[in-house]
Amino acid sequence: MNERNYTLLCDYYELTMGNGYFELGKGDEIAYFDVFFRKIPDGGGFAIAAGLEQVIDYIKNLHFTPSDIDFLRGKGIFSEGFLSYLANFRFTGDIYAVPEGTPIFPGEPILTVRAPSIEAQFVETYILLALNHQSLIATKANRVVRAAAGRAVAEFGSRRAQGGDGAILGARAAYIGGCAATACTVSDKEYGIPATGTMAHSWVQMFDSEYEAFVAYCRIYPQNATLLVDTYDVLRSGVPNAIRAFREVLVPMGITHCGIRLDSGDIAYLTKKARKMLDEAGFTDCKIVVSNSLDENIIRDIIQQGAKIDSFGVGERLITAKSDPVFGGVYKLVAKEEDGIVVPKIKISENPEKITNPHFKKVYRIYDKATGTATADLMCVYDEVIDETKPLELFDPSETWKRKVCTDYTAKELLVPIFKNGECVYETPDIDEIRSYCKAQIMTLWDEVKRFENPHRYYVDLSQKLWDIKHKLLSENSKK
Amino acid sequence: MNERNYTLLCDYYELTMGNGYFELGKGDEIAYFDVFFRKIPDGGGFAIAAGLEQVIDYIKNLHFTPSDIDFLRGKGIFSEGFLSYLANFRFTGDIYAVPEGTPIFPGEPILTVRAPSIEAQFVETYILLALNHQSLIATKANRVVRAAAGRAVAEFGSRRAQGGDGAILGARAAYIGGCAATACTVSDKEYGIPATGTMAHSWVQMFDSEYEAFVAYCRIYPQNATLLVDTYDVLRSGVPNAIRAFREVLVPMGITHCGIRLDSGDIAYLTKKARKMLDEAGFTDCKIVVSNSLDENIIRDIIQQGAKIDSFGVGERLITAKSDPVFGGVYKLVAKEEDGIVVPKIKISENPEKITNPHFKKVYRIYDKATGTATADLMCVYDEVIDETKPLELFDPSETWKRKVCTDYTAKELLVPIFKNGECVYETPDIDEIRSYCKAQIMTLWDEVKRFENPHRYYVDLSQKLWDIKHKLLSENSKK
Repeated sequence: MNERNYTLLCDYYELTMGNGYFELGKGDEIAYFDVFFRKIPDGGGFAIAAGLEQVIDYIKNLHFTPSDIDFLRGKGIFSEGFLSYLANFRFTGDIYAVPEGTPIFPGEPILTVRAPSIEAQFVETYILLALNHQSLIATKANRVVRAAAGRAVAEFGSRRAQGGDGAILGARAAYIGGCAATACTVSDKEYGIPATGTMAHSWVQMFDSEYEAFVAYCRIYPQNATLLVDTYDVLRSGVPNAIRAFREVLVPMGITHCGIRLDSGDIAYLTKKARKMLDEAGFTDCKIVVSNSLDENIIRDIIQQGAKIDSFGVGERLITAKSDPVFGGVYKLVAKEEDGIVVPKIKISENPEKITNPHFKKVYRIYDKATGTATADLMCVYDEVIDETKPLELFDPSETWKRKVCTDYTAKELLVPIFKNGECVYETPDIDEIRSYCKAQIMTLWDEVKRFENPHRYYVDLSQKLWDIKHKLLSENSKK
Repeated sequence: MNERNYTLLCDYYELTMGNGYFELGKGDEIAYFDVFFRKIPDGGGFAIAAGLEQVIDYIKNLHFTPSDIDFLRGKGIFSEGFLSYLANFRFTGDIYAVPEGTPIFPGEPILTVRAPSIEAQFVETYILLALNHQSLIATKANRVVRAAAGRAVAEFGSRRAQGGDGAILGARAAYIGGCAATACTVSDKEYGIPATGTMAHSWVQMFDSEYEAFVAYCRIYPQNATLLVDTYDVLRSGVPNAIRAFREVLVPMGITHCGIRLDSGDIAYLTKKARKMLDEAGFTDCKIVVSNSLDENIIRDIIQQGAKIDSFGVGERLITAKSDPVFGGVYKLVAKEEDGIVVPKIKISENPEKITNPHFKKVYRIYDKATGTATADLMCVYDEVIDETKPLELFDPSETWKRKVCTDYTAKELLVPIFKNGECVYETPDIDEIRSYCKAQIMTLWDEVKRFENPHRYYVDLSQKLWDIKHKLLSENSKK
């Protein structure tokens, strides 16, 4: 399933531009493109990078089949020279990226491509798609997981996902963001995300009574009996029948762990009542799982109201990031090589937030040495090096009089080499490593950045050298 | 690409339930499941069914590979008998569905499965995923297309789609809903959706000046020269340079059709100014294309403000249905066969809107014979037949005193046979046929149903026989 060929999953203009560069003899000019995003979904204080593994699979697997070439020939606008070039196409450039699970912020590159112009342009669509999709879901999942305040969250949204990959890779991204499990079976097989699930309402309806349905389930899965109690009436029928079934089947086997799930109704009210009924019947180890169009806001609300919940199943609002379902990563030309020199490029815009940060860059994350807390990210020109033994002056790139001098800090480069001359030089970590890394990295952020509403804006600054270059390009262009 | 095996893209509980039915000897009991939805996205008056072709591909291709079986065995909860059964699994039941492109309404079945319980349960996840995703995008696309009021709309969202299928099949669904084209190349190759595109900002940045970039593009694509004019400054640089390039390259070739694209700034203001500049320069045939986080509301607004636009490129807000990104189709058991008799089943809920319409049903759409307008949909028990020569009394299923007698009507069955005993008996129409059918079917709806804000609620009624059965089941359950 990993081997699917997504080469033609490209915007058509990548090909019209590619053919143009080829015809003009510009195909070998080296171009630099950055992926960055402008706005954190849901007004949050940080996002989480995800999807790099799929970018790597895509780059490794890039090739046009003979039928792809025939299809393109049929369009009647591509030269035979270009089509021959595509028949032998592979990626020969360099890619740098932040590891999956890294907290990321607006304006900074999260992936940089350096490659001959046709190649660098061509990979735009899928790279953006993969990073946008999984970063969106990882970021949303992390909000939900933080709202659940230590209770496990399982991703339950496959049926409402936007397409098969939405479900499969959405489950992967949700796990990176902190979910404990998924309902999506193939995500377990392909990516090692633990799959979980017990019964639907239809199980209950397939029997003559709810009680018989529960007893049958407990007999088959005594170690994993989580019973769905809202097919008819939670408190009058579901919970009492679950208690009877537990008594009849599990108690004689000496099993005390079991569970009930609620998928409708007023969760705060019903779980408090159900908890009381279960405890009074002696099933204090019985876990209460809830699902029903949940998200981080509802979860915070019902926990605050004292709902008795052990874990959550979160479906459509997580797998589609319903409240803000677009991660707006873009792919912009930031430099070209001319006679071996890296020449910075800028894109101006009537919308000031659409103006790009030019040049081939590196990004340092500055940590306070004493506390380990992330203070700011600093974008530099590729050939700058931070000397940690010297004080480092940071300044706000818009309000440049706001300055701060860091001492006693460490500076860590965020982007690491992924491809070098077309060869993958990066070993993708195991999914559980990525998940742990993500959790640890979020721990380095100030609580103020992690706030759900009106979080503190984390500093993403430019070095003096980069700021000067950007403002020189801006003033040159305004004189044109 | 069509041949991808999605068998394991199932919620894990489909397998735990399947194993349970198998172990209890209930696997051969015939079950009936309906797909229906509860709420039209964006508060619209109707939705559009899409995704059936992918359901058909999925059902035809259903099989567990040896590695799937090994994976499931490793879970340690499935019996060897069940695993052997899965190794030979295929779908043997019946499926009925509304054709793609049909306007659909809450509460009515849009697909019905009749099959042995394990099979009928197993196919839930992917059927929902396919129908939910594409119906969502087709419905959204149709809103955007209607807002554009005759101007062409191209789907430009691949890079912000939620995964590869989100892009590829989203483009397909958008075309069904009325879009004219897509940027997604593979959707053209695989599904015949016309792919389109010209240049990104990076093309302009790759040249020493915007003017040189435009001239180069016009020389290579004189028949298809749509120039992106907002890399630096639309009115001071972009449009004047486009006019110079058109004059230098196209005019000597006798070509008058050409185009400009704007992707930022105040579209209403800029297009009016640009139109005037183009017209004054003699380029009255030059088309103006706009893109930039558009949706149906922005499009209606800028058209109303007199923006001069010939066509739209709509990206992230269409491909994710951003304003309401979940199509809430559900899959519910509605009947079982017991000794060859179809026995209706119901699911009650604390949330009244989650109560199901029981039984194996058919749905008639009632058209006024004189005008051809759709009056109402009527759900009946499977064995009811409407006699068009007789008056037909319709009534509101909640406010049952609201009654209306139809005369001079035609009644068309909405669901058609798709699979019979596991064999596909349906010939999938060509994508252009689906698109035309969709357009024609929407023409049969009252304008009041097509209103964007507070549309008239289309009537979806129950036959007297079905209403009686539902209320008998409700009262039986409330006595339990």
